[in-house]
Amino acid sequence: MERKVTLACGDGGELAHKLIQQVFVSAFQNQDASRFDSAFLSLESGKIAVTTDSFVVNPLFFPGGNIGKIAVAGTVNDLSVAGSIPLYLTAGFIIEEGFPLEDLRKIVRSLAEEASAAGVRIVAGDTKVVEKGGADGLYINTTGIGVQRAEHAIRPGEMQEGDDVIISGTVGDHGIAILAARGELGLMTDLQSDCTPLNHMIDKVLESGAHVRMMRDPTRGGVATTLVEIAEDFGAAIEISETALPIRNEVMGACDILGFDPLYLANEGKVILIVARNDRQRVLDVLRAFPEGRNAAVIGHITGMGEGRLLLETPLGSRRRLRRLSGMMLPRIC
Amino acid sequence: MERKVTLACGDGGELAHKLIQQVFVSAFQNQDASRFDSAFLSLESGKIAVTTDSFVVNPLFFPGGNIGKIAVAGTVNDLSVAGSIPLYLTAGFIIEEGFPLEDLRKIVRSLAEEASAAGVRIVAGDTKVVEKGGADGLYINTTGIGVQRAEHAIRPGEMQEGDDVIISGTVGDHGIAILAARGELGLMTDLQSDCTPLNHMIDKVLESGAHVRMMRDPTRGGVATTLVEIAEDFGAAIEISETALPIRNEVMGACDILGFDPLYLANEGKVILIVARNDRQRVLDVLRAFPEGRNAAVIGHITGMGEGRLLLETPLGSRRRLRRLSGMMLPRIC
Repeated sequence: MERKVTLACGDGGELAHKLIQQVFVSAFQNQDASRFDSAFLSLESGKIAVTTDSFVVNPLFFPGGNIGKIAVAGTVNDLSVAGSIPLYLTAGFIIEEGFPLEDLRKIVRSLAEEASAAGVRIVAGDTKVVEKGGADGLYINTTGIGVQRAEHAIRPGEMQEGDDVIISGTVGDHGIAILAARGELGLMTDLQSDCTPLNHMIDKVLESGAHVRMMRDPTRGGVATTLVEIAEDFGAAIEISETALPIRNEVMGACDILGFDPLYLANEGKVILIVARNDRQRVLDVLRAFPEGRNAAVIGHITGMGEGRLLLETPLGSRRRLRRLSGMMLPRIC
Repeated sequence: MERKVTLACGDGGELAHKLIQQVFVSAFQNQDASRFDSAFLSLESGKIAVTTDSFVVNPLFFPGGNIGKIAVAGTVNDLSVAGSIPLYLTAGFIIEEGFPLEDLRKIVRSLAEEASAAGVRIVAGDTKVVEKGGADGLYINTTGIGVQRAEHAIRPGEMQEGDDVIISGTVGDHGIAILAARGELGLMTDLQSDCTPLNHMIDKVLESGAHVRMMRDPTRGGVATTLVEIAEDFGAAIEISETALPIRNEVMGACDILGFDPLYLANEGKVILIVARNDRQRVLDVLRAFPEGRNAAVIGHITGMGEGRLLLETPLGSRRRLRRLSGMMLPRIC
């Protein structure tokens, strides 16, 4: 086989067959499926959850991960924060002509390993090859399928004044890691992306019996945009404290230099939880028992129901209203 | 809203929110889903079928369809030929910066209309925007979810000598329509792509009680590659007759001029069926009752089981062995 992906690998013939067999099927060890492109699944419950996401991150490899890892983490986390148990993934690859096969293998291997660690199976896939310059290397779409938990594990309807806002760790690591990996801004840092599947940790939170009103993963648009969405969707007045935000020194430093606000930076391994105040400690204890939840912290609370808005308390004690990300911050972040 | 898609539409903030609300949610009338990106589905049966496919067709608009229509037809047909009943689709859009919003609306509308006609619901979606030159306009991934039929509607294990090979219509229409639409080869033709969902027609075939051993949709790689795959997967010796192939004059003419073999051209609205000889007429009658099956024909038969191979009987009565498509025929066909 050639060392680069050629256009002929994408046309459904002999070379496409070889590419799928040698790169994908072997990595996914997809024992049930007779063909790579479709599968039959068994689900115990009839109520299933579905989400889809395309990944267009640039660069494809970055400290702490690559597009294959993020394609698993992003979709697994989408299902998990919705209160579902992720079980299956499909993976669609759009590959640029000339893409090095060795890189493709690395990415596919990473995708397979992360899926295995998260306990989800890759059940169907697809590859398309586009002309040079047509896909900036590689894009991946993953669609996740899971089962909805039998009980109402998450109850947004019970959100109320006094509920706490918890984040599972430091803010903005992925955004700054990607920016540094681009090498465009002369940013030197050892920072790693936080990109990781969170479903096992979230499972434990829900199994603890804590009253979780709502979970979201603050990816594109960051913590601020995610909290504005929650505030608007449920008519909650949310207040967070700038001093309570867990932020790494490297992220803070980079934001100071570059003029970014960490609240709008993407995260790929963090979950925001709204929980009953009485369950605050229980949730923090569960989160902090996981490496990916070590820096979990209470960052704010719900100050009232009715008007949906997000306020930030600054270190000087003043309050300012935060909006969704407007205009462009960082393209191709995930 | 701007008249072109900007990079800022892809970063998860205010503009992304507007793009999704104004272009996608309105078109899909997605009443159940509170968010565009995920959904909960109810399935009566616990056994589900899943397939995924990315669409990278060039040009995006062609006679008989566009990338939105093909993104529905391709995935619906994948499920349908596997004997499943397609119910739900997810749709992931990778959009190039600067893409005209009016074209995006047309494509999304077409996708919604085809889904509705096929009886499937778009339940989750995603949009990403990449820099100018990063996606040649637009790529779409669709993942299809369906239920496996309760009974064993398709029995490849019963494939045997004497079974007939039927195709539901003319060969190569999509491939030549796309080629003509590119305008590169000076090909002038009124030919339309055959691109269409086939699930209703296939439902009727299976409901007729006919013994269907196997179905496949001859897309990339064409009829020859699809039949070689069936032959190899099930150890069947298949023989087809060149004179029996339904081919439009425009397709034959274009192939003669350009040196293409219609057996290797892509089809997007055709199904190949292997059926018990006794049920041949019943299957043809069902197919021909549909506009998309009007030109259905028996094109060959299984000459024995054991060694998987495909032979073509030429008009002069000689036989030659056909292989998978090797090398490149037409890139970006679907």
